[in-house]
Amino acid sequence: MSLPEVTQTYRDPHHYPKGIAFLDDQYVPMNQAKVSVLDYGFLHSDATYDVVHVWKGAFFRLDLHLDRFFAGLEKLHMAIPYDRDEITEILQNCVALSGHRDAYVELICTRGNSPDFSRDPRDAINRFMAFAIPFGSVANKDQMDRGLHLAISDTVRIPPSSVDPSIKNYHWLDLVQGLYDAYEKGAETTLLVNGHGNIAEGPGFNIFCVKDGVVTTPDSGVLLGITRQTVFDLCAELGITCEATQISRDKLIAADEIFISSTAGGVMPVTRLNDYAVGGGQLGPIYTQVHRLYWDKHNDPAWSLRVRYE
Amino acid sequence: MSLPEVTQTYRDPHHYPKGIAFLDDQYVPMNQAKVSVLDYGFLHSDATYDVVHVWKGAFFRLDLHLDRFFAGLEKLHMAIPYDRDEITEILQNCVALSGHRDAYVELICTRGNSPDFSRDPRDAINRFMAFAIPFGSVANKDQMDRGLHLAISDTVRIPPSSVDPSIKNYHWLDLVQGLYDAYEKGAETTLLVNGHGNIAEGPGFNIFCVKDGVVTTPDSGVLLGITRQTVFDLCAELGITCEATQISRDKLIAADEIFISSTAGGVMPVTRLNDYAVGGGQLGPIYTQVHRLYWDKHNDPAWSLRVRYE
Repeated sequence: MSLPEVTQTYRDPHHYPKGIAFLDDQYVPMNQAKVSVLDYGFLHSDATYDVVHVWKGAFFRLDLHLDRFFAGLEKLHMAIPYDRDEITEILQNCVALSGHRDAYVELICTRGNSPDFSRDPRDAINRFMAFAIPFGSVANKDQMDRGLHLAISDTVRIPPSSVDPSIKNYHWLDLVQGLYDAYEKGAETTLLVNGHGNIAEGPGFNIFCVKDGVVTTPDSGVLLGITRQTVFDLCAELGITCEATQISRDKLIAADEIFISSTAGGVMPVTRLNDYAVGGGQLGPIYTQVHRLYWDKHNDPAWSLRVRYE
Repeated sequence: MSLPEVTQTYRDPHHYPKGIAFLDDQYVPMNQAKVSVLDYGFLHSDATYDVVHVWKGAFFRLDLHLDRFFAGLEKLHMAIPYDRDEITEILQNCVALSGHRDAYVELICTRGNSPDFSRDPRDAINRFMAFAIPFGSVANKDQMDRGLHLAISDTVRIPPSSVDPSIKNYHWLDLVQGLYDAYEKGAETTLLVNGHGNIAEGPGFNIFCVKDGVVTTPDSGVLLGITRQTVFDLCAELGITCEATQISRDKLIAADEIFISSTAGGVMPVTRLNDYAVGGGQLGPIYTQVHRLYWDKHNDPAWSLRVRYE
């Protein structure tokens, strides 16, 4: 039996969402936006990233996302040949060329490789890339209307002693395990715990607990989400106390309201936790206030940056 | 200022090692071996893999690598359309088409995506890929001759309560942090600790400690390496006691010999740990026996499978 033929140019049979990516100083359609299987960003998940959204033609709080992205680069000993203004221009171009008025915009830096494929990360040439695709949300329309159903998993979120959670990273196998745990319990998404057995975070979102008019969110071992920070800012403006603290499973189950925060969807309601209805199964008044102000703020020039589409 | 042009076909400026990859039923050169930035294998490091090596034209212990790979797929709720024989044929073809007599062969399954880019991993179509590139080693020739210099990092290896270490995975940010810690101490590579502060493993390798003629290796929270298993098997054949147990930093520092194991290089000596010389800075007698038998076994048909190059 003879050996198979080598195909010199790979024929890609997959479909991709409409969007534009930037890599190696080229703006390309999403079907061209790929990383080598040898890039340590893939092989070692040695990468950091950020996600900012565009809503009705404007970036929301882009400055905060850029702050976090550049801080992550430094912590990972990575360097890229673009400054903040240049990255802003690249992201703006990805969105404008995609034509999306509502977009999910991701910027990524991978470790890359060295020319001789050394195993030493100091030898690698880091790679920056970015893309804009249609806006996505943790909760769909139905879930936004009725509230999500969450289940707490016994899986422990990767601890800060292993991976610094302030570096936004792609280490999600614990979160994926939590999702399968939640599906088995009939829930829609999951919450992981920290090393003390208290609540940590879910796949791509932070969690907020409301009790007797006070809002709390886990204080450690979680991503310092920009939308999490925005909830603090919105609560301050609304005169609502919002504090970071340890939250036990029992405290969360006894909450008057629960909501989650993510750039992918904003502030989203939870009305069922494990087998318990939260707040009588209705969207709560504090969630409703925070949610409304969150979207109002998208029109505030102090918190948004308009995309130039032509 | 007008918007930049969109490049319909990305022009790749990077260089790749000589080799052949398999994806979507095509055998392609390494410059075509890429994953979409949207594949959850990249975006969530939601993937498992295995690495087997080919030495002088034969796979070494391929069966054990396939056992582990298929076990990982099941634990991650992944499925691929190839059985063991078909994967063996794919790997054999990648190596044969590459022409490499000594090769590093990786097989990968990523979560992939669903056609509508759902966030639910159950909707995703998992993707299998594989590649063969030149043989690589944790230790270079000089390090093999004189022994590696390791430093123990305070970074804790991602614990089993977060990610099951028996699933070979790409979550390496803790190991990368450990490497930078080691470089700061003037060492060449690193050892991470477990949650008890005892020794866990290093980037891509297991560790072995020799004291008074007995070989020990960490018993939990580590990858169950095929080369680690091979060291157990070789010690049994050599009449040397080899046990898995907890190993404290102090115990390791007091070792008579230290060596590491990896498919990328086999059994490799360590002669310096932190600021201490190990075994008087010389390669030890047990390391030397195990190392010699390890390479002898590459000629044993029971442990090897010849590549058909034409």
